[in-house]
Amino acid sequence: MEKTSGKRHHVVVVGAGFGGLDVVNGFSDADVDITIIDRRNYHLFQPLLYQVAGASLSTSEIAWPIRYLFRNRRNVLTLMAEVQGVDIEARQVNLDNGSSVGYDTLVLATGATHAYFGRDEWEPYAPGLKTLEDAATIRGRILSAFEGAERTGDPLTRAALQTFVIIGGGPTGVELAGTISELAKDTLAHDFRSIAPRDTRVVLIEAGARLLPAFPEKLSDYTRQALEKIGVEVALGSPVTECSSDGVIVAGKQLKAKTIIWAAGVQASPAARWLGAESDRAGRVIVEPDLTVPGHPDIFVIGDTAASKMSDGKFVPGIAPAAKQQGKYVAKLIKRRLKGKGGEEPFNYKHQGNLATIGRSLAVIHMGRLKLRGAIAWWIWKLAHIYFLIGARNRLSVALSWAWNHSVGYRGSRLIMRTSEYRKHPGE
Amino acid sequence: MEKTSGKRHHVVVVGAGFGGLDVVNGFSDADVDITIIDRRNYHLFQPLLYQVAGASLSTSEIAWPIRYLFRNRRNVLTLMAEVQGVDIEARQVNLDNGSSVGYDTLVLATGATHAYFGRDEWEPYAPGLKTLEDAATIRGRILSAFEGAERTGDPLTRAALQTFVIIGGGPTGVELAGTISELAKDTLAHDFRSIAPRDTRVVLIEAGARLLPAFPEKLSDYTRQALEKIGVEVALGSPVTECSSDGVIVAGKQLKAKTIIWAAGVQASPAARWLGAESDRAGRVIVEPDLTVPGHPDIFVIGDTAASKMSDGKFVPGIAPAAKQQGKYVAKLIKRRLKGKGGEEPFNYKHQGNLATIGRSLAVIHMGRLKLRGAIAWWIWKLAHIYFLIGARNRLSVALSWAWNHSVGYRGSRLIMRTSEYRKHPGE
Repeated sequence: MEKTSGKRHHVVVVGAGFGGLDVVNGFSDADVDITIIDRRNYHLFQPLLYQVAGASLSTSEIAWPIRYLFRNRRNVLTLMAEVQGVDIEARQVNLDNGSSVGYDTLVLATGATHAYFGRDEWEPYAPGLKTLEDAATIRGRILSAFEGAERTGDPLTRAALQTFVIIGGGPTGVELAGTISELAKDTLAHDFRSIAPRDTRVVLIEAGARLLPAFPEKLSDYTRQALEKIGVEVALGSPVTECSSDGVIVAGKQLKAKTIIWAAGVQASPAARWLGAESDRAGRVIVEPDLTVPGHPDIFVIGDTAASKMSDGKFVPGIAPAAKQQGKYVAKLIKRRLKGKGGEEPFNYKHQGNLATIGRSLAVIHMGRLKLRGAIAWWIWKLAHIYFLIGARNRLSVALSWAWNHSVGYRGSRLIMRTSEYRKHPGE
Repeated sequence: MEKTSGKRHHVVVVGAGFGGLDVVNGFSDADVDITIIDRRNYHLFQPLLYQVAGASLSTSEIAWPIRYLFRNRRNVLTLMAEVQGVDIEARQVNLDNGSSVGYDTLVLATGATHAYFGRDEWEPYAPGLKTLEDAATIRGRILSAFEGAERTGDPLTRAALQTFVIIGGGPTGVELAGTISELAKDTLAHDFRSIAPRDTRVVLIEAGARLLPAFPEKLSDYTRQALEKIGVEVALGSPVTECSSDGVIVAGKQLKAKTIIWAAGVQASPAARWLGAESDRAGRVIVEPDLTVPGHPDIFVIGDTAASKMSDGKFVPGIAPAAKQQGKYVAKLIKRRLKGKGGEEPFNYKHQGNLATIGRSLAVIHMGRLKLRGAIAWWIWKLAHIYFLIGARNRLSVALSWAWNHSVGYRGSRLIMRTSEYRKHPGE
């Protein structure tokens, strides 16, 4: 680490998500030292995570080694480490291996994970979808459920194995419901003998009154109808009161299901705790208009772990484009300061729109006055995502996978990994 | 399962490796019911497993769902289940879920795993390479070692983290040594700041007098020289007497290394135990010339889990082509019997040759009088493997990955999966 603790201004970025990467990218022309710290060795393209869970894409198609992305940036040091805390007095970040990294400016972009609203005991039964391991876990459970259904002689067990419950009607829930329904009805249709994948039930449960609450009501209704057309049962206004190995209790009724997926709540990273800063109910650090922590102009918090109020009093949404805009803004702001320039504009979020896919050929898009739905929206969604994928290799690979899945209906990575057989290093 | 327990002759195949698949393929024109049972849901192309461990290929590029391979074979039932034993009297295979599958003819093709010659306590420190999980585990350890080296301030720790020991000088050991050495010296060379991947030590340890003992001595010598040229240290005639988290003790000397890979011994599956049949030292079932179990003409054992003597008294080698030949032979033999034909020829193994790659652009091939080495051999190896890969999608995908790695030097799947974060289902 000595290398970067020279005389030059040292910016430490924690988290290599969309926000963190764009902070580092924003300094490509600046004479500063940058250290980017992440507990993973890769950047994850989260918007496509549901396609790994649905066996359409393989894990390596949506993740790239962080240090590979910055291999030509000699002033960028990449560290894979877990942050234990921040020592504000000593101006250093403490890492899990006992070492620490000093900073002149600190940017925390540590994201969020799924939350169970105080029912953490549900997690083993209803895993959420935030990491590659989550995706591989969910993929394995979906495929194992079909294998179990093919094997069992008992019709009740088979029915429970062929029932898939998704809790939460936001974009992730909608996308998971669509992809699982099509996995069962198209991809797996010819592969089984004792069961009919068409008997599969996919139930999307939303406590609120409509799907995709962030979208206009018309698009929410369209989404529900489109999902129902591809065989998804949509239950609105139906809070889940229990999750177990038998299934869920929703609106007082028992729904037997061996596979439950959680797409409901999110909880911010512990950044607020590290800083001893004020946070909102979701645990997000309440930041100043310039995204700094109150009283600490040298510490920025961005992305899903920051609560940033807009001029209209609403909060910046927890989506990739928002994190990217914040990353760019922070890099620009720090550079202005280093040049001794004042006149800092507060962060001003430009909402570019919302997108969500419904199965393999439909989508909804909302951009300002523009409301798109159906196949055109889906094509725009595809092109946008392929465009935003990092690296030519992955663009090509994902495009190939999608083209293949779409034409042949084969899913590239229908692998059930034996999670219990991964060997942990005794030192791990 | 009822479906398959009709009047037709029921062939049950356990194991969907090269041997098992070719048994099923051999019945494509026959009026029999087939059940193929495997504890995985996929067929694994083991010869390329080392490239997953070396981060060149992703897991989904070398594995295909078994039931997808047989989706158009209406008389084939695929079951994902763990076999607990065989009830020879009742003529049924007992599965882990308590159910059982009756058979008229049984074919066991359950393969082999790695063995530690009675030192099973070494496994946590020196994992072997037989499964996708093994490959992901080894890949994760290799990449984590470099990440740890970049992070540490202590030169001794760093040296141990940058030392990789491979135990066993067969094809797998040779291929792993080559790919790790090139991963460090080419792929990772520009990605680190505090460490020089070129300081990496890759040590290939073989207890015997030469590498690739199945090859002619000249090719063994060439392989050693070729490996040394790409920076691999080869230690011959050096038995390992200790494995620990510190490293290995080889030829009485301590070699500090944080990453050890086991490529030495193999142990057959428990097929012999299931049958109560005679087995050799490696646990392989000693079979008749027609690959049946002595005294049980309705039970065949093939592939790595069978000890089949050739006319020259040697045993059929444990390689993919041998298993495939045995699979074809067994299918043909059963069909003859069903037609009431006699005159069964004993199984006659045709050795097509041995291949092994040395890093990214060299290989050795031995076919009868033909001895090839270097780049030509490597091209033949590539084409042969792409040809034998199942499914156009995977051929294309692997060819693409290889072309990309070769030209750009980027490895497609440098992902460290958090094995501890895979969530096991409470029911698992």
